[in-house]
Amino acid sequence: MTFTLQKALVPVDRGYSTVDVQVVDDRITAIAPNLEAIGTVVDCQNKLLLPGFVNAHTHSSEMWQRGAIRPVPLELWLAELYDFVPLEIEQIYLTALGTAVETLLSGGTSVVDHLVLIPGKEIETIATAVRAYKEVGIRAFIAPLIQDESLTAGVPSGGTEQEHDAYIRSTGATLALIQDAVNKFHNPSEGVYILVAPTGIQLCSDALFTGCVELSERYNLCRHSHLLETKAQVLLAQEKYGCSAVEHLKRLGYLSERTSLAHCVHLTDEDIAILAETQSTVVHNPLSNLRLGSGIAPILKYRQAGVNVSFGCDGSASNDSQDLLEAIKIGSLLHNVTDLDYQHWITPRQSVEMASFGGAKGLNVADELGSLTVGKKADFVLYDLTNLSLLPRTDPIGLLILGRPTQVVDSVWVNGKKIVGNGQVTSIDVDNLRKELFDRSQWVTNRQSQTLDEIEAHYRSVMGLSEKSGYS
Amino acid sequence: MTFTLQKALVPVDRGYSTVDVQVVDDRITAIAPNLEAIGTVVDCQNKLLLPGFVNAHTHSSEMWQRGAIRPVPLELWLAELYDFVPLEIEQIYLTALGTAVETLLSGGTSVVDHLVLIPGKEIETIATAVRAYKEVGIRAFIAPLIQDESLTAGVPSGGTEQEHDAYIRSTGATLALIQDAVNKFHNPSEGVYILVAPTGIQLCSDALFTGCVELSERYNLCRHSHLLETKAQVLLAQEKYGCSAVEHLKRLGYLSERTSLAHCVHLTDEDIAILAETQSTVVHNPLSNLRLGSGIAPILKYRQAGVNVSFGCDGSASNDSQDLLEAIKIGSLLHNVTDLDYQHWITPRQSVEMASFGGAKGLNVADELGSLTVGKKADFVLYDLTNLSLLPRTDPIGLLILGRPTQVVDSVWVNGKKIVGNGQVTSIDVDNLRKELFDRSQWVTNRQSQTLDEIEAHYRSVMGLSEKSGYS
Repeated sequence: MTFTLQKALVPVDRGYSTVDVQVVDDRITAIAPNLEAIGTVVDCQNKLLLPGFVNAHTHSSEMWQRGAIRPVPLELWLAELYDFVPLEIEQIYLTALGTAVETLLSGGTSVVDHLVLIPGKEIETIATAVRAYKEVGIRAFIAPLIQDESLTAGVPSGGTEQEHDAYIRSTGATLALIQDAVNKFHNPSEGVYILVAPTGIQLCSDALFTGCVELSERYNLCRHSHLLETKAQVLLAQEKYGCSAVEHLKRLGYLSERTSLAHCVHLTDEDIAILAETQSTVVHNPLSNLRLGSGIAPILKYRQAGVNVSFGCDGSASNDSQDLLEAIKIGSLLHNVTDLDYQHWITPRQSVEMASFGGAKGLNVADELGSLTVGKKADFVLYDLTNLSLLPRTDPIGLLILGRPTQVVDSVWVNGKKIVGNGQVTSIDVDNLRKELFDRSQWVTNRQSQTLDEIEAHYRSVMGLSEKSGYS
Repeated sequence: MTFTLQKALVPVDRGYSTVDVQVVDDRITAIAPNLEAIGTVVDCQNKLLLPGFVNAHTHSSEMWQRGAIRPVPLELWLAELYDFVPLEIEQIYLTALGTAVETLLSGGTSVVDHLVLIPGKEIETIATAVRAYKEVGIRAFIAPLIQDESLTAGVPSGGTEQEHDAYIRSTGATLALIQDAVNKFHNPSEGVYILVAPTGIQLCSDALFTGCVELSERYNLCRHSHLLETKAQVLLAQEKYGCSAVEHLKRLGYLSERTSLAHCVHLTDEDIAILAETQSTVVHNPLSNLRLGSGIAPILKYRQAGVNVSFGCDGSASNDSQDLLEAIKIGSLLHNVTDLDYQHWITPRQSVEMASFGGAKGLNVADELGSLTVGKKADFVLYDLTNLSLLPRTDPIGLLILGRPTQVVDSVWVNGKKIVGNGQVTSIDVDNLRKELFDRSQWVTNRQSQTLDEIEAHYRSVMGLSEKSGYS
């Protein structure tokens, strides 16, 4: 593909400039006012051009349960989630498409899918997600979610004797599975990346973490995990390691400049220093952290310590959307209440940089992605500034980040290929997707999770909550 | 108008039911499955019907500055806001239309416009907002924003000598103005209500509050004010009254079952008890409270104390949108991080009730509005459950409140009149509005507020912030 964007508004210093952008194949070859028009010409008048954002943490198949789970904390929410987890391969396909579509239409060009694997169909699950993302054309960082301990082990024992079932798959078999996935699917030049992604300290052994480190080093893979999302996990780390989870992961050699860690809500100042020292990235999932009552991640402290921060929607069962602009807005504003000194508050321009460059950095691709720079990949988004939700005209980036933009994404290119035009995803049949999602679901209310019922009393006791009252 | 909605999904107990709804003139006359079709028939298959929400606090003309003001606390933000306040009557008209459109398209059927008056054109400002809202057909609660002290008086002195200019209009003249507005515009049967609306303790004398109480009693008007939005206002109340602002307002007789109070971020348990006792309503503006770093209002405490709570978007310069569904989502989730016991968390159904019935109650019209009830006014909203952002199908209200619905409002009726159909506002020319907003504005960045610069050093000192560093 060779094309020229004409008269696009782009941010420069503290203002804006109107420029042309030339693209040859998959790369930006020139950015300047009044360039010669080469290839297809795209009129960008009254449109804002920004580098694509990264939806840096999600779980696509959770979309089957969005809106379904009542407000409860992570540990109980997970119990319900897994009681109703989708088990058909076709479901994986449809919600990977859905996740890609919502991400694209809210400014994202890359998605990190911490993909829940269907037991017994693990490779097929990954193959299906790869197929869906390739069809849409979004850049896909697929992080098959692995663990080697069963779900109940994720709740602190609180000094009581707890027995947990063995996990369905051994550590060795799990690592072999990831190696297989890497061999089959890891293909950065085609926009598909496999990550090692042990879910987190709550359900993974040291052997799983170190096995992942080895795979990561052998194949140059990024690493992706949840980290200290809840207070319960802080307690659990103390029970398991006698030290903080961050300290333990550092000792295991898991933290690095290609490690991204979702949530990071409950870290101490010492933990933050370790993240800075190891150049790890924090993926901020503000909506999920609120929805599950996990807490407010100390994002301003991370930024002051020099820790890279990006944004994620998290899975649609804990948000319950894949609107990246919403996650960026709330993830930026939320911290104003944590620090009285507004000099530390995140500005809309900083939010844009976190969502684009910060996202790329956390995936070890900042030399290729994350900014409008000659030589970088052509992954960018054109916003229609004549949309009612961005009017009256004031500061375009202020409107985009602080407002509630509705259908403002006009066009999206990934790897130089246009996959959204006139506000519509053009690479797949979205109306058919809509029909499939409708037909394969039904309006359900008041479903009862057996696992949640089983673990609730223990959870309340460990967390120091009074006995359950007439809650319904 | 006589019409029948057929096969609408409505919430009942903890599930849903499919019903028909008959409307004659402006009122609901029957709700039941399989009613006789009278008048126009509206097919509501796969659509959710809910009572209209109330956008219970906003300032319409702030829309001219949305996206424009950098992240700073209220007191500095106000300084910049007023330096660039719109001064043309036509501007009032256009952003009242814009506020109405965004409110309608996010589930609102009523708006409380705490309307900033153009100096010297006060009655004309009110007349213009009335005209705009009547043209759109939204139910309009117009609360002309009044004060009798000048802006700098809103920042605590911190023990220093501060001189403030006299306000541009006397207390008596201000009260006469409101009386005039009531005579000219207060017309509940036509969907236009005038409220007495002293901005808050920070800029109003006792005489203004008591004058408003008298007007409220004489004409049966609701009362609407800001209350304890920031820490600075807590300090100011102590300086002014030597007691809490809530105690003082109670003594003045301002608090009542028809008083609604925006923000209420910094109240003590004693203050909360006073709100409960006086049956005052709290209007929760979560996005503005985050954007300005004001804090997290203790909404769960209000609910536990029996205080009525509704939702507002607040003005578009502190949000920066009028998307009521966004305000409801964030205003519901935000509090999960303030109470470890999830039994107290707000459920999506409770959110709907707060936004509809709670909104009506705060405006003293709960006998007429706020629920789908035979005999009540036909103010309701039909949501398209086949929209991609509400799929796959799970719990309709969970999807609507916890998700990020995009263009899901199919139709809206106010006072029995249909003003939105097929997702489009039909009562005015929205495309023309869009063009007008575009033409009358320009992309501006880095504007400098002189007043902000003047008061910043004093503000930082009073709030215990260090001297300004290299902030830019």
